Amino acid sequence: MKTIKDSVHDYIEVEGVALSLLDTPPLQRLRHVSQLGTVTLVYPSANHTRFEHSLGVYHLADQALSHLGIEGQQAERVRAAALLHDVGHGPYSHNVEGLIHRHTGKYHDDVHDLIGEGAVARVLTEHGLNPDAVADLIAGDGELGQLVSGELDVDRMDYLVRDAHHTGVPYGTIDHGRLVRELRFRDGELVLAEGNVQTAESLLLARALMTPTVYSHHVARIAKAMLRRASARLLEATDTDPETFRRMDDAELLVALRSTDETAEIGRRLTYRDLYKRAVWAERAAVPAEVLEMEQTAIREREREIAEAAGVDPAAVILDVPPEPSMAESSSRVLVNGTVRRLEEQSTLVRALQAAQRDRWRLGVYAPADVRERVGDAAVRTLDLDIEGARVSDTPRGIHTTLDEFE
Amino acid sequence: MKTIKDSVHDYIEVEGVALSLLDTPPLQRLRHVSQLGTVTLVYPSANHTRFEHSLGVYHLADQALSHLGIEGQQAERVRAAALLHDVGHGPYSHNVEGLIHRHTGKYHDDVHDLIGEGAVARVLTEHGLNPDAVADLIAGDGELGQLVSGELDVDRMDYLVRDAHHTGVPYGTIDHGRLVRELRFRDGELVLAEGNVQTAESLLLARALMTPTVYSHHVARIAKAMLRRASARLLEATDTDPETFRRMDDAELLVALRSTDETAEIGRRLTYRDLYKRAVWAERAAVPAEVLEMEQTAIREREREIAEAAGVDPAAVILDVPPEPSMAESSSRVLVNGTVRRLEEQSTLVRALQAAQRDRWRLGVYAPADVRERVGDAAVRTLDLDIEGARVSDTPRGIHTTLDEFE
Amino acid sequence: MKTIKDSVHDYIEVEGVALSLLDTPPLQRLRHVSQLGTVTLVYPSANHTRFEHSLGVYHLADQALSHLGIEGQQAERVRAAALLHDVGHGPYSHNVEGLIHRHTGKYHDDVHDLIGEGAVARVLTEHGLNPDAVADLIAGDGELGQLVSGELDVDRMDYLVRDAHHTGVPYGTIDHGRLVRELRFRDGELVLAEGNVQTAESLLLARALMTPTVYSHHVARIAKAMLRRASARLLEATDTDPETFRRMDDAELLVALRSTDETAEIGRRLTYRDLYKRAVWAERAAVPAEVLEMEQTAIREREREIAEAAGVDPAAVILDVPPEPSMAESSSRVLVNGTVRRLEEQSTLVRALQAAQRDRWRLGVYAPADVRERVGDAAVRTLDLDIEGARVSDTPRGIHTTLDEFE
Amino acid sequence: MKTIKDSVHDYIEVEGVALSLLDTPPLQRLRHVSQLGTVTLVYPSANHTRFEHSLGVYHLADQALSHLGIEGQQAERVRAAALLHDVGHGPYSHNVEGLIHRHTGKYHDDVHDLIGEGAVARVLTEHGLNPDAVADLIAGDGELGQLVSGELDVDRMDYLVRDAHHTGVPYGTIDHGRLVRELRFRDGELVLAEGNVQTAESLLLARALMTPTVYSHHVARIAKAMLRRASARLLEATDTDPETFRRMDDAELLVALRSTDETAEIGRRLTYRDLYKRAVWAERAAVPAEVLEMEQTAIREREREIAEAAGVDPAAVILDVPPEPSMAESSSRVLVNGTVRRLEEQSTLVRALQAAQRDRWRLGVYAPADVRERVGDAAVRTLDLDIEGARVSDTPRGIHTTLDEFE
Repeated sequence: MKTIKDSVHDYIEVEGVALSLLDTPPLQRLRHVSQLGTVTLVYPSANHTRFEHSLGVYHLADQALSHLGIEGQQAERVRAAALLHDVGHGPYSHNVEGLIHRHTGKYHDDVHDLIGEGAVARVLTEHGLNPDAVADLIAGDGELGQLVSGELDVDRMDYLVRDAHHTGVPYGTIDHGRLVRELRFRDGELVLAEGNVQTAESLLLARALMTPTVYSHHVARIAKAMLRRASARLLEATDTDPETFRRMDDAELLVALRSTDETAEIGRRLTYRDLYKRAVWAERAAVPAEVLEMEQTAIREREREIAEAAGVDPAAVILDVPPEPSMAESSSRVLVNGTVRRLEEQSTLVRALQAAQRDRWRLGVYAPADVRERVGDAAVRTLDLDIEGARVSDTPRGIHTTLDEFE
Repeated sequence: MKTIKDSVHDYIEVEGVALSLLDTPPLQRLRHVSQLGTVTLVYPSANHTRFEHSLGVYHLADQALSHLGIEGQQAERVRAAALLHDVGHGPYSHNVEGLIHRHTGKYHDDVHDLIGEGAVARVLTEHGLNPDAVADLIAGDGELGQLVSGELDVDRMDYLVRDAHHTGVPYGTIDHGRLVRELRFRDGELVLAEGNVQTAESLLLARALMTPTVYSHHVARIAKAMLRRASARLLEATDTDPETFRRMDDAELLVALRSTDETAEIGRRLTYRDLYKRAVWAERAAVPAEVLEMEQTAIREREREIAEAAGVDPAAVILDVPPEPSMAESSSRVLVNGTVRRLEEQSTLVRALQAAQRDRWRLGVYAPADVRERVGDAAVRTLDLDIEGARVSDTPRGIHTTLDEFE
Repeated sequence: MKTIKDSVHDYIEVEGVALSLLDTPPLQRLRHVSQLGTVTLVYPSANHTRFEHSLGVYHLADQALSHLGIEGQQAERVRAAALLHDVGHGPYSHNVEGLIHRHTGKYHDDVHDLIGEGAVARVLTEHGLNPDAVADLIAGDGELGQLVSGELDVDRMDYLVRDAHHTGVPYGTIDHGRLVRELRFRDGELVLAEGNVQTAESLLLARALMTPTVYSHHVARIAKAMLRRASARLLEATDTDPETFRRMDDAELLVALRSTDETAEIGRRLTYRDLYKRAVWAERAAVPAEVLEMEQTAIREREREIAEAAGVDPAAVILDVPPEPSMAESSSRVLVNGTVRRLEEQSTLVRALQAAQRDRWRLGVYAPADVRERVGDAAVRTLDLDIEGARVSDTPRGIHTTLDEFE
Repeated sequence: MKTIKDSVHDYIEVEGVALSLLDTPPLQRLRHVSQLGTVTLVYPSANHTRFEHSLGVYHLADQALSHLGIEGQQAERVRAAALLHDVGHGPYSHNVEGLIHRHTGKYHDDVHDLIGEGAVARVLTEHGLNPDAVADLIAGDGELGQLVSGELDVDRMDYLVRDAHHTGVPYGTIDHGRLVRELRFRDGELVLAEGNVQTAESLLLARALMTPTVYSHHVARIAKAMLRRASARLLEATDTDPETFRRMDDAELLVALRSTDETAEIGRRLTYRDLYKRAVWAERAAVPAEVLEMEQTAIREREREIAEAAGVDPAAVILDVPPEPSMAESSSRVLVNGTVRRLEEQSTLVRALQAAQRDRWRLGVYAPADVRERVGDAAVRTLDLDIEGARVSDTPRGIHTTLDEFE
C-alpha cells in the first residue's frame, strides 16, 4: 500500500490494481494536463492537474464502495475505472475536446483504445480485470458505471471541492462526506438515501454557482476560444496527426503553438495572457435562431465575413456560440418516502436553476483590443444581432453583464 | 489599538469607540450567550458565542465602510452599532426571543434602553456618539442602518461563515470578501455593484441550505421548543422579572431551570440531551387553517387537550407551529445595467427558493419517547390533521421526512 | 451507527459501546465543560468543549486501532476509554484540578468511582466490558493504555488540532493523519515506525509553540489564578461538598461564584473579563529557592503578608507559582534503524525545547489595576525577589516580557 | 485597481506600478515556472507557480509597509520589487539554479539585466521608479531590501504558507498575520517587536520541519539531480544558449529534454515519474572530507569512475553532494527588553535546529532500479565511503533512514 498526501483529502491510500496503475505512462501523463485549462488565467492559483483529481476520484470511489458494501473484483474494477477515468483527456482537458471529437470521433470518456493496450491493459489483465469492462464503467455503462460517470458520480464530488480549494472560490465546497455516505442502489439505480433531497440540491447548487464564476468565466471562455482556434489551425497547417494531438499534454501543445508560424501569435498571447477582448456579448434573445444552430464550418465562415466587414485579419475574429446549458444533476435520484424520485420532479429549485442557467447563456465575439469596436460593429451587422444603436461600445450591450473585477 | 485573534477572520483590529466598548458588561455578557442555542445538540462543535460573532460583524462593517469610503463620526457610529448589535439578545439568543417579546414588548434589536444608560452610554457619549442614534442603526433605521441590519447587512455575512466553521457544514461558506467589496450606495439604498446578481444569489442560497440543515434542524427545534416551554413556566412559577430574565445569560438560565421544581425535569433533559421525540411532523397541507393561525394561548390550550386525550401529563406535550418562512435576502438590491433591481425581480432562483422553503415547513408535536405514539394519535385527532390511518407510527407520516443521521 | 458532524474531523462514526455511552449523563455533562477554560478570555473563539474533544479522541483511537489491526473486545475497551477519558474533569477542566485533588485526592484521570457505577457502568457491563479495566486504560495503565494516555496518545493529537482550529493559532496543526498511521507496538511499547523522528519532533514542537501562546498565556493564567482562588473560597465559605464541586459544570460554578457573597466580586470579574493585572512577573533566577518550593498553605500565608505590607485587602493579592514545566512527549518512542529509541536520546531538539520551556517560566503576582503598583512593591520585598530598584513599574521587570497585544 | 482571488490570501488588491507590471511578459512567464519543481513528484497537489507566489509576496509586502507606515515612492519601489522578486528564476526554479549560475554567473536574485530593459523597465520608468534601484531591493540591498530578501522577508512568509496549502503538509502554516504586524525598523535593521522571540522561532521551526518533509524529500532530490544532469547535457549537446536556457519555462525545458536525443531518456523518466533509486544514502560521518569538498567537474569525474567500476553507462550514475545546510532565519533580529538581539543569541532552539539540520545531511548516489545494487557497491568503493560490509543492500545503510511512504 502507498499513502499519498493530497491537499484536499489529506491521505489517500492506494493499493491493489490502483497501485500498479499509478506508474503507467497514461496516468502519469495526467500530471501534465491541467484540471481547469484556461481558468488559471482568471484564478492564478488554479494550477491543479488531472492527476491529483484522478487520485481524489479514486479515493471517493473507494469510500463509496465501502459504504455500499461492494467488495472483491467488482469493487476493484470500479476503483480502476475511477483512477483511469480521465486518461482520455487531451491537452487542456475540455478546452479542445470538441476539436478532438471532430477529428477522431472520440470524447474523453471513450477510452477503449487507450486502456485496451499497452501498460494499462497489461496491469489490468494481471489483476484479472478486463480492460473493456473498465472502459465501459468509464463511459458510465452498467449499474456501477453510475458511480464513475453519472448524475451522482464521485467525479463531480471531487472536482467541485478541489476546484474550490484551488481557485479560492468557496461555492464548490460541498459536503462530499455526506454524499458518499448516503449513496444507495435501488433497482439498479444509484440514488441518495431517504432525507437527502437537500443534499442533492446542494450538489446542483454548487455547480450552478461555480459554472459562471469559474468554469464559464468570460475571460476563461475567451482564452479557451483562442486555444481552440489555434489548435484547429495547428492541425491544418502542420502534419500533426489528430491521435498524436489527442495524446499531447499541456506543455507540448503550448510549445507547439509557439513554435509553429501559423499559431505563434496566439501561442504567445496565451502564454503571456495578452488576450482578445469581448467585442459582442449577447444574450439569447438577441441572437437569430439560425446563428444558434450553426455548425463549426458555418461559424468559421461567419468569422471570415465579420473580419472582412470589419477590415481586419480573419485571425482577429473569434465567434463563440456555446451549446445549450445542461444540468446532469437535475436527474439525480433521491429516495422520498420509500420511492425513487428524480430530483427535478421533487425539487422546485431545479427548474429555477435550469432557467437561471439559460438566462446566463451568452454569445461572444472576441477580437484584439485595438479592433474590438470595429469587429463588434461588423459582427452585430453580419450576424443580424438585435441590438439597438449602431456602435458597439466599451460595455458590450444586450446583456446582464458580468463585467467583474477579473476582466 | 488592540488586535484580537479570531478563528474566522484571523486578526481583528479594534480601536476607537469599539475598543472602549469592549470592556463594558453588556458586551462581555455576550461571551455567555451562545450563537446557535440548541443547535449544539445536533452539531457538537457549534459552541461559538454572540461575543465572537459581534467582533466579526464589527470587523466586516469596518471593511465595508473602508470600501465605501465612509469615514469620521459617521463611520464610528456604524462600527459601534455593529459591535453592539446583539446586546439585546436574551439567553440562548433567538430561542426565547418570542417569549421575551410577549413579556417586555422588545425584540433583540430594540436596545434603546440597554445602551441608553450605564457603561455603554457613558463610552458612546465620551466618544461623541449619541446612544439613541446608535440604537437606531441597530434597528436598521436610516441609510447606514442597512449595513447593520438589512438584506445585505454584515451580520448575516459573518454568521453564515462562522456557523459553517463551527458546525462543519460547508454550505454557509460564502465569499464575504467579495460581498463586502461590492457594496454600494445608490439613492440611499445599499446595493451590490454591477455584475453581482450571482453574488446576491449565493448569499440567499447559503442561507437556504443552512436553514434546514442547521438552523431549523428538527432536533434543534425540539430542544428549542422545550427550552421555550420551560422558560415560560419559569416566569409563571417564580417571581423572576421578565427584564431580569431578558438579561440572563445561557448559564444562568440553565441553572435556574434545573434548580426550580417546576422546570427541573426539562432543565435536566436539556442538560443531558434527553430530548422529546417527534409524535407528529406534518406538512402544511395536512394542517387546518385555524391551527396555522393560533396564538400562544390557543396553542397552550390545545397542548392541554392533546395531553388529556392521550392520558399524559400536560408537560409531556409540546406543540410547535412555526411562522411562515421569510427570506429577507429576496429583496436585496443589485445594480443591473445601471438601475437598482430587487433580487427577486431579477433572479428566477428567488421564487423557487421561497417555494422550497414553504415546502419544508412542518408542524411538530413533541413528547417523551415512551408516550410518543399515544400523543401522536391524540394530536392527529385533536388538531384534526389530515393524516390517513389512525395510528401515528414510529415514522411520522404526512411528510417528506428529513429523518437523517442526527435524529 | 450514528454519524456526527465535527468541525475538525468532519464525520465521526459512532457505534457499539460508544453509541450507548453517548447518552449517559457523565458524558453529556462534558458539553458544559469548556476545553480550555479561561483561555477564551484571550482567544474569544475558543469555546469548544470537552464533549466534542472526547468525540475526536474516540475517532482517532478508532483510526489508530484500525491501522494497528487491533479488533474485538480489546478494541472496544479502548474506544470506550477514549470516549470517556475526560469524564473526570471538574468545572473548567485543568483550571481547578489541583484544588479538587487537594480535597478529594483525585486527578481527572482517576475515574474508577465515576464509571464504576451508574449509567456508564451499566452500559459498559451490557457490552461485556469491565468498568475497572476501562478506568485503568484511562489512567494510562497497560499496553493499550498508552494509546489513551501516554506520550503518543490520541488525546494530544486531537487537542492540538482542535485548539488550533478554535483559537485561530496555527501552531497546533499537526499531521494527525500521519501520526495515527505510523503508530506501532514493539515489545509492549507504543512507538512510531521507522522514519518518523521528525514526525515525533513535530508533535513536541506543536505543543512547545502552543503552550506559551495559548495554554499559558499570561492573561489566561491570571484568570485561572482568580478562578482557583475563588473556588477555594467557595469551598471554605459554603457547605459545598468537594465531590459535588468536582461534578459541577462551568455554568454551575460560575453561577455559584456570582451568587455567594464571599466570591461574588471575583465571579463578576471573571464573567465580564475585568481581570487583575500583573504586579510582578519574575523569571526563575529572580526567585529565591524557598519561594519556588512553597506549598499552597505557605502561598496563602505569603499572599496575606504581601497584602498587609501593601495595605490592601487580602483578596486583592494572588501569588501564582507554577510548577516545573514538563514535556511528556520528550520520552515518546521512535523506531530508528530497527531499535526503539526515546525521542530525547535521538533528537537534539528535545533538550533545547526543554531549556526553552524552563526559560519561559515566570512567577506572577496579580492584583486589581488600581493597586497593582503597591502590591508589586510589597511582593518584591516580601518574597525577596532579586529585582533592582524599588518601584515595580508598569512594565513588570526582571523578565523577557511577553507583553503582547492580548494583555 | 484590480482584485485577484488567491487560494491562500483570498483577495489581493493590485494597483499602481504593480498593476502595470502584471501584464509584462517576464511576470506572466512565471505562470509557467512551478514553485517547487520536482516536489510535485512527491506531493501531487503541489503544482503552484511562481506567479501566484509573486502575487502573495506583493500582498504581504503591501501589508507590512502599511503596518510600518512606509508610503509614497519608497513603498511603491518595495511593492514593485516584491512582485518582481522571482523573475530571475530559470525553469524549475531552484532546481537548475546552480547550473545557470555556472554558465551565466547569475543567481535568481540578480536581475539588473532582466528588469533594466524591455517592458518591465518601461513600466517602472513610467511610474518614476529606477529599475536598478528595484533590482537592488530584490538583491536584498539597503534597509528596505530586508523586507524583500532577508531573514524576515515576506518571501518566506508567503512560500511557507503556500507550500503547506498545496502540499497538504501543515508544518508551514505560520502565523503570517502576526509576523507582518510585528515588523519594526531599529537603527536600519528589520526586527520583530518586543515579545516575539517565539514568533521568530515559529518561522524557523516551520522551515526546519518543511525542509526534510518537503523541500529536501529524497524523491524530490533524486528527480532534481536527474533534471540537473539532463539540463547540463542539453547545454553541452545542443547549441542552446545559456541565456536562452535561463529564460525557458518548465514546459519548454521538459519538451526540449524529451526531443533531444541525448536527454530524451531522462526527459521521459521525469515526465512519467520513472525515477532513479537511491544506491547510496550516506550520512556525513561516512563521507571522506575530499568528497565533501568536490566541485562539479570532480563530481562528474567520479560519476564516470563509479559507472566504469559498476560496468554501467555513465548516464546511469548520479552523485548528489548537497552543500552545508544553512538557516538564514537564525540571524533574524528580535527586540528583547528594548535592545536588538539576533535570534540565535536569544533562542536555545536555534543551535539545536542547526545541529538537527546537519544531522539530516545525506550524500546520495542514484541509479536506475535494475543497476542500483551494482552502482551502490561501486560507489562505496570509489568514494571510499565508510560503510561496513561489501554489498549495498536494498535499504541504504549508514543512515538514520527516512524511507517513508513516499519512496
